[in-house]
Amino acid sequence: MILKRNFNPLKVIHYVKSELLISTAASVGIWWLFENGIAQFSLPFSIAAILGSALAIFIAFRNNSAYGRWWEARKVWGGIVNSSRVLARLIITFTDSHAHQANYEKERSESFKKHLVYCCIAWVHALRIHLRNQETWSELKPFLSPEDYSQLVLSQNKPNFLQLLIGKKIYQAMANGTLGGFDSFQMEGQLLALANYQGSCERIKNTPLLRQYDFFTRLFLYVFIILLPFALIGDFSRMEMAGLMVPVSILISFVFSIQAKVGEVNEDPFENRITDVPLSSLCNSIEIDLKEMLGEGNLPKKLNQKDGYLY
Amino acid sequence: MILKRNFNPLKVIHYVKSELLISTAASVGIWWLFENGIAQFSLPFSIAAILGSALAIFIAFRNNSAYGRWWEARKVWGGIVNSSRVLARLIITFTDSHAHQANYEKERSESFKKHLVYCCIAWVHALRIHLRNQETWSELKPFLSPEDYSQLVLSQNKPNFLQLLIGKKIYQAMANGTLGGFDSFQMEGQLLALANYQGSCERIKNTPLLRQYDFFTRLFLYVFIILLPFALIGDFSRMEMAGLMVPVSILISFVFSIQAKVGEVNEDPFENRITDVPLSSLCNSIEIDLKEMLGEGNLPKKLNQKDGYLY
Amino acid sequence: MILKRNFNPLKVIHYVKSELLISTAASVGIWWLFENGIAQFSLPFSIAAILGSALAIFIAFRNNSAYGRWWEARKVWGGIVNSSRVLARLIITFTDSHAHQANYEKERSESFKKHLVYCCIAWVHALRIHLRNQETWSELKPFLSPEDYSQLVLSQNKPNFLQLLIGKKIYQAMANGTLGGFDSFQMEGQLLALANYQGSCERIKNTPLLRQYDFFTRLFLYVFIILLPFALIGDFSRMEMAGLMVPVSILISFVFSIQAKVGEVNEDPFENRITDVPLSSLCNSIEIDLKEMLGEGNLPKKLNQKDGYLY
Amino acid sequence: MILKRNFNPLKVIHYVKSELLISTAASVGIWWLFENGIAQFSLPFSIAAILGSALAIFIAFRNNSAYGRWWEARKVWGGIVNSSRVLARLIITFTDSHAHQANYEKERSESFKKHLVYCCIAWVHALRIHLRNQETWSELKPFLSPEDYSQLVLSQNKPNFLQLLIGKKIYQAMANGTLGGFDSFQMEGQLLALANYQGSCERIKNTPLLRQYDFFTRLFLYVFIILLPFALIGDFSRMEMAGLMVPVSILISFVFSIQAKVGEVNEDPFENRITDVPLSSLCNSIEIDLKEMLGEGNLPKKLNQKDGYLY
Amino acid sequence: MILKRNFNPLKVIHYVKSELLISTAASVGIWWLFENGIAQFSLPFSIAAILGSALAIFIAFRNNSAYGRWWEARKVWGGIVNSSRVLARLIITFTDSHAHQANYEKERSESFKKHLVYCCIAWVHALRIHLRNQETWSELKPFLSPEDYSQLVLSQNKPNFLQLLIGKKIYQAMANGTLGGFDSFQMEGQLLALANYQGSCERIKNTPLLRQYDFFTRLFLYVFIILLPFALIGDFSRMEMAGLMVPVSILISFVFSIQAKVGEVNEDPFENRITDVPLSSLCNSIEIDLKEMLGEGNLPKKLNQKDGYLY
Repeated sequence: MILKRNFNPLKVIHYVKSELLISTAASVGIWWLFENGIAQFSLPFSIAAILGSALAIFIAFRNNSAYGRWWEARKVWGGIVNSSRVLARLIITFTDSHAHQANYEKERSESFKKHLVYCCIAWVHALRIHLRNQETWSELKPFLSPEDYSQLVLSQNKPNFLQLLIGKKIYQAMANGTLGGFDSFQMEGQLLALANYQGSCERIKNTPLLRQYDFFTRLFLYVFIILLPFALIGDFSRMEMAGLMVPVSILISFVFSIQAKVGEVNEDPFENRITDVPLSSLCNSIEIDLKEMLGEGNLPKKLNQKDGYLY
Repeated sequence: MILKRNFNPLKVIHYVKSELLISTAASVGIWWLFENGIAQFSLPFSIAAILGSALAIFIAFRNNSAYGRWWEARKVWGGIVNSSRVLARLIITFTDSHAHQANYEKERSESFKKHLVYCCIAWVHALRIHLRNQETWSELKPFLSPEDYSQLVLSQNKPNFLQLLIGKKIYQAMANGTLGGFDSFQMEGQLLALANYQGSCERIKNTPLLRQYDFFTRLFLYVFIILLPFALIGDFSRMEMAGLMVPVSILISFVFSIQAKVGEVNEDPFENRITDVPLSSLCNSIEIDLKEMLGEGNLPKKLNQKDGYLY
Repeated sequence: MILKRNFNPLKVIHYVKSELLISTAASVGIWWLFENGIAQFSLPFSIAAILGSALAIFIAFRNNSAYGRWWEARKVWGGIVNSSRVLARLIITFTDSHAHQANYEKERSESFKKHLVYCCIAWVHALRIHLRNQETWSELKPFLSPEDYSQLVLSQNKPNFLQLLIGKKIYQAMANGTLGGFDSFQMEGQLLALANYQGSCERIKNTPLLRQYDFFTRLFLYVFIILLPFALIGDFSRMEMAGLMVPVSILISFVFSIQAKVGEVNEDPFENRITDVPLSSLCNSIEIDLKEMLGEGNLPKKLNQKDGYLY
Repeated sequence: MILKRNFNPLKVIHYVKSELLISTAASVGIWWLFENGIAQFSLPFSIAAILGSALAIFIAFRNNSAYGRWWEARKVWGGIVNSSRVLARLIITFTDSHAHQANYEKERSESFKKHLVYCCIAWVHALRIHLRNQETWSELKPFLSPEDYSQLVLSQNKPNFLQLLIGKKIYQAMANGTLGGFDSFQMEGQLLALANYQGSCERIKNTPLLRQYDFFTRLFLYVFIILLPFALIGDFSRMEMAGLMVPVSILISFVFSIQAKVGEVNEDPFENRITDVPLSSLCNSIEIDLKEMLGEGNLPKKLNQKDGYLY
Repeated sequence: MILKRNFNPLKVIHYVKSELLISTAASVGIWWLFENGIAQFSLPFSIAAILGSALAIFIAFRNNSAYGRWWEARKVWGGIVNSSRVLARLIITFTDSHAHQANYEKERSESFKKHLVYCCIAWVHALRIHLRNQETWSELKPFLSPEDYSQLVLSQNKPNFLQLLIGKKIYQAMANGTLGGFDSFQMEGQLLALANYQGSCERIKNTPLLRQYDFFTRLFLYVFIILLPFALIGDFSRMEMAGLMVPVSILISFVFSIQAKVGEVNEDPFENRITDVPLSSLCNSIEIDLKEMLGEGNLPKKLNQKDGYLY
């Protein structure tokens, strides 16, 4: 996620460099042909206007959809923050709530609390690594027992494996008296929420914005960029400033290209790019919150922005 | 679902070939009549502009609705992925949670787990076949007992029959002690979710986008394509390039036709076309996940895209 | 709901006949006055453009709202299909789940299942008749006991009466042991859903789209239709084709009138018109599904479209 | 809420009279100065077009938001209708469901049912009076015991007081055996829904549409109305019909003013105006439904529209 | 939140002063160069129109998103009002509902009710201080026991700490008999709601509107403002009123700048500015409602607007 307010102009131009090159080539070429009297084709400006508004409909649609995808992804991760905290709170308060009962064993309960909350932290990191198609599963080692970890690396869908693991541990605790009553019933609510959030992330990850919109936006953008100089050259040469057409044509092409690109970079929010939903930072913040709830002293350092970007 | 980023131009032209033919006929005809002085009708360009923007309102509305339908269908199937996994997790952890009880029979419980999870897989496949109006019910044979399968083929709404079957099996398990306590209560939550997802799919399948919007979009598109050459010929003949009107007119008609078609192919997401929500792939992925949760070794192969399409 | 893809042109013209008449009268009149030099008023075309875009805002707003109402109504009825099926499934599986208990009476349970599922079917039909302001309550006779039916006809809000009746029957069954445990608790969830769906239907039925939008859309449409010939006559007479103004003016008026009408017919989805949400067909389909779940053999015939319409 | 389809033109003009006065003064003044050659300022029409479209963005935004507020308010009250009915149904069926138990006292139960359902009716009326900032609390007297009423008039947030009262009465009934089991648990669901609906109403009531949008919409509207004659006078005087500019300018100002006003009157739906959500009618309808469910004979008369308005 | 209907023009101009300065400098400079014949560059007006509509797409998108963020924040705080009231009601009615039981101790129960409701008030104030990045934690002293307060100041995420504290106190009360049965189960529902609301606030606070939209809106606005005089000077000098171009250019720049700014100030609703969601007032109102529910006499004074602003 970009946090800085002003961008490096060179980077911006780099993003739309192929569009700018085409625009420059087309407008300079058409101007040269026109000035030298070789080919004096020109189009009425209304052609550019009608194509421009057709293009605008596509670009607006795509920007809205792309932003909608990004914001949904951010909301889902906001939900993961909430449900992780709530699940950790339930684990802690429910385990403690049996302290006055006959079969309460303090050590077993304390170890269960830490163990299960660590599994929740592991799930969050696993989902991040899974979504970004990374392979750094060893990050999860500190949060899992050696046996659980060795099973995890063999499974195909790691976050799903951890869900099943958390579920099993809850029912083992129900059986041995660490938990009791309706504790599992209430925890299931948060497990369900986390499972649904995982599914939403996978849906956004695996379903690109419909390619039709992407392809035709690009196609119509190039058509527009190439026709624009024809539509401008007439008016400008009548005003005896035909050369001015070139920068104006490039400027308008730049504006439309940026609009198209702005949507494109937001379409896929889990690609480990600077425009991502800041998964690393969110996972870090969940880890801090959950460890603090366990009463641990040695909390990880907060991840901050670097050069205006938050990963 | 289309995954490739660039399309075959011939296929694209094929999609809008009737619109292109009409446009070509109209613009060539009008140019010929004009050039030969037979009929020099022309319209002010503003007529095309006002009709073009009225058409744009319809096209934008239809594209938004069509995309909304497609995306809702995709979300519903995302929900089916989640709820299937959660239901499978509940079946497994709940059955195992009674392992320490007196009336636990390992063999009965293991067979119940596999049997019921297979019913869930069968439901998913059945919904796919049902939505695509196919008749390949024999695909479900490996997941059902012979008696269940023979009853299934007699029922009218197969996914609904399987829901009822799953429900009955849960209460049989409650009765014989395989399950107990509030297990059925919690499983009902996921059965309910799956029933609602089925209903949403059937709603999208059975209710086409309102025909009024479809019919008048097509009608106004044809009116626009036929009037466009009249609106262009005046300006172009004044600029002494009347012949240029023909390609420009075809180009603008192409852009508007594509915009109208892009919406049309997304309207109905369950038709076994390349623009479908990828039901086969989603069912395959649910089958893999659920079988892995059961601890099975021999998982089916992952369905991948073919030639840039995912079915 | 209209299912056919192409409309009868005469019917279409009939829908906007008053707008077409006004447009014809205005444009022919203005052309005649202009041609005969009696009154040569004309307006710049930009006046029509600015009024046209103001009108377009209203029409677009109204079309979106009207479609939103129709689609919400369809979603609600989709929900009714789901909840009816789920409630029927619960009635059947819950009643059967007590088969192994001491106080189980097969005959009482079987009759309860049929009786209560029939009440659900009656509720669905009652809601349809209620929403369409019809009085054909005798359709419900086959689904209710004579006493229940005679009470029903006396009540003001019939679907609400049936809800109360279903609720009472569930608690009677809880009391006599046909049901038990948390059965009623879970059934309440579906009764609540059905009550909320009924409320949503009544809201859409009783609250027309705000009249302000309707009135001013019509007013501005007429103003636009009458001013349009004035705005066109200037350009056309300069191009020496003043007569051509008449069909062009009528054509543009037709396009805007259709856009306004398309929204209007979707505003109210429960009026027993061809553009309705197909309540009869949905009720018929619920009746078939529920009777099949009861294991009945003699299912009603599926309602199909007639002449391209589904009621 | 307005139910009649056609409005009194005088009332409509009255709503936008200040805008029409300013428009008339500006256009007549500018025309007079122009005709008499005192000041012949004019602007290109494109200035009006660019300001008009900037204004249109604001007006469209405001109309959408205002309608969204109105429709949300209507939905919330639709929810209040549903939840009131469901809560009444639960009160009645739950109380009756204990009829076969040892500690059942028919008189106590019947009086409890009536008493509690009347409290629900009182809550609905109280919310209406609260939202409209009225002081007619004596309307609630028939629904409350004298002690409850005397406490009510002392409380600050009357609907909130009634919620607490209903909650307390439910637990008293749980304690004395009128209710039992999970009755209170299920009733809480509807109490919660009603509390949330109250909160939504208060949010809409207490948070006006952001004043920035209101102020600048009005400001830009006045700017547009004053500049419009300057932008029209040039074209009209060139066509030698300078006088015609005055009615055309007023007409366009009228259209834009109406569009702005239509949003304004829908912004605040709880002000006891003709454009309100019809709270009186909704409360009346809830009262009838709930009394009918209690089996009362003497139902209040249905509130109907008066002169095309429903309050 | 701004409550007054009319704004101070000086303050308004102050908000867009840099845009106005640039516009003034550009238009005066271009006019001076043009009039003195030094440089007579001019652009066709259509260039401004096409850039203006591209800019409008960005501004409209940003205004919609910014308003969406503000309104979501307001809705979340509306939800906090509701859930706080409901939780307080549950605390009070549940504690009282055990009054007829053997182990009821009036003093313990009364003190528990006040203590826990005060914790809820503390949570609300803590969330406000947390969101506004303030450090006035001593405001919470009156609502917490000295030990709780001393722990609170050491924690990193104070509202989250208070959630955990409330959870723990509920289970202590379950253990000692102040609460019982399913009381904690139902209270968890409201704790969960509050946790989710906190998460939503943190999401809005920590995720600015995507910087891409902000940066390019500003960039394109400046480009538009600078090019506008070039696009106007041609038409105005042809009408021999070149000087009039300066105020018109500034006016149009003002309108577009205001539209861009109006969105900007609503983007971040928790910054202790006059355009904030009125957190102080909402917290004050929750405090009054909850203390009144406890039956306290000495209620805090209602926070009212000051100079037309509500904080």
